[in-house]
Amino acid sequence: MIEQRIEEVTRANQAFYEAFESLDIAKMDTVWAHLEYVTCVHPGWTLRSDWPNVRDSWVLIFNNTFSMKFELTEVMVQVAGDMAWVICVENITTQQSEEPQQARVLATNLFERIGDEWLMIHHHGSAVMG
Amino acid sequence: MIEQRIEEVTRANQAFYEAFESLDIAKMDTVWAHLEYVTCVHPGWTLRSDWPNVRDSWVLIFNNTFSMKFELTEVMVQVAGDMAWVICVENITTQQSEEPQQARVLATNLFERIGDEWLMIHHHGSAVMG
Repeated sequence: MIEQRIEEVTRANQAFYEAFESLDIAKMDTVWAHLEYVTCVHPGWTLRSDWPNVRDSWVLIFNNTFSMKFELTEVMVQVAGDMAWVICVENITTQQSEEPQQARVLATNLFERIGDEWLMIHHHGSAVMG
Repeated sequence: MIEQRIEEVTRANQAFYEAFESLDIAKMDTVWAHLEYVTCVHPGWTLRSDWPNVRDSWVLIFNNTFSMKFELTEVMVQVAGDMAWVICVENITTQQSEEPQQARVLATNLFERIGDEWLMIHHHGSAVMG
């Protein structure tokens, strides 16, 4: 039971990063719970809460990104009842102009089991120095 | 029931910031679950996991801080079963040398109900730009 839930959450977390890489808002729509209490913190940004505001932040990022690839390391998945949290390091390669850039972001991702799906309810990404 | 739990978690979150302000590791000890899966991200730092490593990071911060005061804004408390998460903005006044400094940090705090206590299992703080 717990192993199965950890597998499900691991897949939900991967689906989030696939949606992120796709830069396709329709994919991001399927990953998140469309609820008032969802929240999102992008590196250095202020807090976004409520689904329409969270969604807008993704549209803004997707419109300003040419290409983004993720390699996840130090992935930790924990499940307690219908709540799950994932901590991971996002090793990111972005391309906004010609030169590819590397960045390392630490992420806290929260998922809630709603119906038979694990949906994202919170994402907090922050830059790792050095 | 849900209102009571939200009150309890709000108090647990306040106790965390009181422990932080006290710069007293004994107080921080009472706030956290002393478990392997606890994790902590200080602004710009890499991930710390497992209680002894998380504890060490607090000792390091407390040993290098003269004074730290928190004013919390945009506090959002959510409870689902025995899990709870708090998102808040920490408006911080620190004093390391003579000049007081202001900083704004966004925090994701996770709590788990263990026995009859809400204990911290994850803290993720990150700087807000501008």
